[in-house]
Amino acid sequence: MDCGRYAIKRVLGEQVVVQAVVFAEGHDRVFARLLYRQAGQEGWQRAAMEAMGNDRWEGSFVVEALGYYEYTVEGWVDRFGTWQEALEKKYDAGQAVGVELTMGAALLGEAAARVGGEAAKELAQWAEALVGTKDENEAVAAALSEEVGAWMREHADEEAMTRYGRRLRVWVDRALAGFSTWYELFPRSCGRGAGKHGTLQDVAAELERVAQMGFDVLYLPPIHPIGRTNRKGRNNVVKAGAEDPGSPWAIGGPEGGHKAIHPALGTVEDFRELVKRTRGYGLEVAMDLAFQCTPDHPYVQEHPEWFRWRPDGTVQYAENPPKKYEDILPINFETEDWRALWEELKSVVVYWLGQGVRIFRVDNPHTKPFAFWEWLIEEVRREHPEVMFLAEAFTRPTVMAMLAKVGFTQSYTYFTWRNTAYELRQYMEELTGTGLAEYFRPNFWPNTPDILPQYLQYGGRAAFVVRLVLAGTLSSNYGIYGPAFERCEDRAVEGKEEYLDSDKYEIKDWSAGERPDISAVVERVNRARRENAALQRTNNVVFCECENEMLLAYCKVTEDLSNIVMVVVNLDSHHRQVGWMRTPLEHLALEAHQPYLAQDVLSGDRYLWQGEWNYVELDPATMPAHVMVLRRRLRREMDFDYFM
Amino acid sequence: MDCGRYAIKRVLGEQVVVQAVVFAEGHDRVFARLLYRQAGQEGWQRAAMEAMGNDRWEGSFVVEALGYYEYTVEGWVDRFGTWQEALEKKYDAGQAVGVELTMGAALLGEAAARVGGEAAKELAQWAEALVGTKDENEAVAAALSEEVGAWMREHADEEAMTRYGRRLRVWVDRALAGFSTWYELFPRSCGRGAGKHGTLQDVAAELERVAQMGFDVLYLPPIHPIGRTNRKGRNNVVKAGAEDPGSPWAIGGPEGGHKAIHPALGTVEDFRELVKRTRGYGLEVAMDLAFQCTPDHPYVQEHPEWFRWRPDGTVQYAENPPKKYEDILPINFETEDWRALWEELKSVVVYWLGQGVRIFRVDNPHTKPFAFWEWLIEEVRREHPEVMFLAEAFTRPTVMAMLAKVGFTQSYTYFTWRNTAYELRQYMEELTGTGLAEYFRPNFWPNTPDILPQYLQYGGRAAFVVRLVLAGTLSSNYGIYGPAFERCEDRAVEGKEEYLDSDKYEIKDWSAGERPDISAVVERVNRARRENAALQRTNNVVFCECENEMLLAYCKVTEDLSNIVMVVVNLDSHHRQVGWMRTPLEHLALEAHQPYLAQDVLSGDRYLWQGEWNYVELDPATMPAHVMVLRRRLRREMDFDYFM
Repeated sequence: MDCGRYAIKRVLGEQVVVQAVVFAEGHDRVFARLLYRQAGQEGWQRAAMEAMGNDRWEGSFVVEALGYYEYTVEGWVDRFGTWQEALEKKYDAGQAVGVELTMGAALLGEAAARVGGEAAKELAQWAEALVGTKDENEAVAAALSEEVGAWMREHADEEAMTRYGRRLRVWVDRALAGFSTWYELFPRSCGRGAGKHGTLQDVAAELERVAQMGFDVLYLPPIHPIGRTNRKGRNNVVKAGAEDPGSPWAIGGPEGGHKAIHPALGTVEDFRELVKRTRGYGLEVAMDLAFQCTPDHPYVQEHPEWFRWRPDGTVQYAENPPKKYEDILPINFETEDWRALWEELKSVVVYWLGQGVRIFRVDNPHTKPFAFWEWLIEEVRREHPEVMFLAEAFTRPTVMAMLAKVGFTQSYTYFTWRNTAYELRQYMEELTGTGLAEYFRPNFWPNTPDILPQYLQYGGRAAFVVRLVLAGTLSSNYGIYGPAFERCEDRAVEGKEEYLDSDKYEIKDWSAGERPDISAVVERVNRARRENAALQRTNNVVFCECENEMLLAYCKVTEDLSNIVMVVVNLDSHHRQVGWMRTPLEHLALEAHQPYLAQDVLSGDRYLWQGEWNYVELDPATMPAHVMVLRRRLRREMDFDYFM
Repeated sequence: MDCGRYAIKRVLGEQVVVQAVVFAEGHDRVFARLLYRQAGQEGWQRAAMEAMGNDRWEGSFVVEALGYYEYTVEGWVDRFGTWQEALEKKYDAGQAVGVELTMGAALLGEAAARVGGEAAKELAQWAEALVGTKDENEAVAAALSEEVGAWMREHADEEAMTRYGRRLRVWVDRALAGFSTWYELFPRSCGRGAGKHGTLQDVAAELERVAQMGFDVLYLPPIHPIGRTNRKGRNNVVKAGAEDPGSPWAIGGPEGGHKAIHPALGTVEDFRELVKRTRGYGLEVAMDLAFQCTPDHPYVQEHPEWFRWRPDGTVQYAENPPKKYEDILPINFETEDWRALWEELKSVVVYWLGQGVRIFRVDNPHTKPFAFWEWLIEEVRREHPEVMFLAEAFTRPTVMAMLAKVGFTQSYTYFTWRNTAYELRQYMEELTGTGLAEYFRPNFWPNTPDILPQYLQYGGRAAFVVRLVLAGTLSSNYGIYGPAFERCEDRAVEGKEEYLDSDKYEIKDWSAGERPDISAVVERVNRARRENAALQRTNNVVFCECENEMLLAYCKVTEDLSNIVMVVVNLDSHHRQVGWMRTPLEHLALEAHQPYLAQDVLSGDRYLWQGEWNYVELDPATMPAHVMVLRRRLRREMDFDYFM
């Protein structure tokens, strides 16, 4: 991680496996051990490291508290072990070892002098066993005993050790950071009546439905007052009608800014009540953090120095030339007054922490300084290590990686545009098989209010199921923007990946219309995730060979091999696809000669499979995917109760 | 290189290509440049970097002086370029740009204030061109001119730049470090009479022969007095006979130690004369640096504290239990008196520098501290950057790499034991396709006095030619231990890779006996190396597909594509092998529809080849390898004079 500049990430209870190359000149034996501790603690905890061959050593520790851990590695020349080895070889070759035994006793004597106390007495006894007997066989046996070797390694001379020059760090999050299921919802569209502005109380009424589907994070787009000046109308037209509510991301009006709640949504008491009720359903509210202002935001009057002003006396609005976003003013992070600005933005986060929020979805973090995020996240987590930040950055790979390095807990990804088997394998390999796996936690979104991908526009209901299953089983963190997703909303602005009649610019009534509803499939996927620990990690994915490139097959397995999930997805949402696929028996510790049961948790079907190659057939008209739990040992009284 | 801790290596005139990931938050354009200089110089030289996509930038510089260079990278947000880009888009979209022009003029004004002088006047004129005209088209054209953009980049605000936090280093060697051909010879075996002890003058008599074969480094095993105590006899027997000369690596006797010359070889004047005459033949003497002593070495009396003493009052000899090397005492680098020891060993090197030596082949450097070598090499090179050190370490990969990192110019390798096509491809990929390529310069030895590999023991004359061609064409640095090599000496100690009746323990008469002689092939291989620049680098090797795994084919090409060498080796020294092999036309800029000439510099044969796949046939009974120069354009008057 850039020579130790940044921390890797783990969640509570996870293991940190550390490898180090440890060597010395010459032929002496070396030893290595891992030192680790919670940051701020005195002294180190030690873990043995094991030689892997070619001077590579490996050790591990488990993180058991939130916050930072640090670790490093120590190596030393194992003089006593080297001496033991030489003694044994000489003795076996029938050479005289009298002088050797004297030298070993001297090594023990030095150790005794170093450690003192009771241990010194024990060492003196060992030394005596080497030189105090006339029976050389007996002396050699004592000298070579595993006990004395282990003792000498355990109490190796600290002064003779070489410690790696850096203390590397691990940031430890709570479990939700590694396994979370997000549902995004526009509060104002929860009113359940054409044009009726929903309230936070209406959101509360949705909780049962959302919980029923199996989500644990309820992410709300900004709930703040919306500006009037240059407000955008339906479908992003430049002039809003009198009734148009504007984009929730156009934050700030006379009613207040980032610490205020849109009056039509309710009060801060309503919000606190919602946070509380959400927790009652096993969910948490995720708040949107969009650091930008409308021209009506109080900051513009109070802190004109936080914005850019043009030579014509107007304030600079956001733009991506020739596109203009006249309703939004970017904050000028290069202001001379940046310290006050940073503190104020931190106070926004602190305010919502006070209202019970512990998760923030950060809008466009890549357009604000990395240094700001690193500072803000560090500041917040010092008191609240349980807080999570999701980076909504769809930008270049280096920038997305950098945001994860500076502290974001989870990140949006390119999954949204990875459709083919090749692309998905490649991308998963990048996320799980490179350094990214240590610090970049992907959160897969098949759709967002900003993105209705082409795959969903042209694939019908099956396409939604395909993307749902992929997101929910490839990544342990995923989310959908609903009800657009589970109601299979596929109407886009012509030629674009934007929703037609988007939630972003109007109040939607999702109860109306006759769209399909895949809520039941969502529920089954989320239930499979909850019930199968193998799906609660991302980095354990293993792709399976498949003769048909339209079928993507992969498995996930827990470290103890007790839970195996095999997923097969027909990526072709239009046609039935069939093919033979290979189960990596060796990886799953399955035996070629024993049948195993594949229980599909989506359809309830059960297949008796055997050996490596098995036949699969998936019809998008019914169900384009298998999510199968593999049962290793088929007992006589078969475990049929999985779906009963 | 371990976060900048160690320097990469180049030879004079070579290029250093630097890639860096350079990015900033937001959407502004960034720029990057490379800063480099000879170490010790004030100020930096600059080289432009080019965007390679995905935030990766590349630049390069050429090293033109011996010693250290340093380099780093600078990046900055290109505000003016960003502004130009936005202006152009707005203008193209027909939007008003009056305010934009004013802002651009302001950027120019700021730059003018910063730089002052004549440049400021020019900038003021440009600013005026933007805002002083009523013709917006004209103003925009001026604003977008490449000239002003380039000027603003060239004079970018130094204060706004971000510099990479490390100064990385390059060590620059003379050309011989990158392209050298070594011949190892025991001086005492140059006497040309049974049992007659050769002298340095006898070595001088060999120079013409060695030069004729095309070598440029003459490496002599230690030429110092040899101890008497525990001297080893012929074939390494424990007791030497009265006439046995002992191993040259058993250094030190009453006549002196590491600064003395064995009386039977001659005097220091003879040595200086040899050094001089060697240079006259276009060769250089490489001296052996074996920091170990016999019990008779003056150091043992003068500095008992530099050795390990056993409880029984004896001094510790070298051992690799249960093997014993009673004639050699390792130096105890962990002595309290290590400073004096290090200085004394340095004085050995300085002494031989004084006698004209500029190349040292270091014996077993891996059994001495890395820190010692790093210090010694740095000390020597401060005054003499032309000095070269070859590390004779046959040990674990990490240790071999570490020795190269701490400063060794060239290194022995595992080539000696890589026989099959798969092994050779793998090993070359490791040497040339990983970080090793930047600092580890392989020197390939098919044999050494310590190693007669099995491949040479059982393959007859052809095996020697195979290994010669592989060593000399895979690696730009290679060497042989002769005359054992060119006389195809293949008699080993039964079951070992050691020479029977080795030069190491007796005086050999190589003129005797009836062994084959491949000196002429050696000469042709070395001539091909001298005449073909493509063979003077190692990292340009590209392996070619071949249908027969017994045939190994590879090509090397100069960067300007002016010299292409194709090598095909029949690795089976017993049987004729045939097959089709693929010339990577795209890599060599050859065209599929035009024939090209393959001129074999070993046999003199010429083949007219066309297209990718061509047939090859190699019979070990005649010549088991092709070393072919490919001629791209076949003119009407064909260039037949290559071998005439």
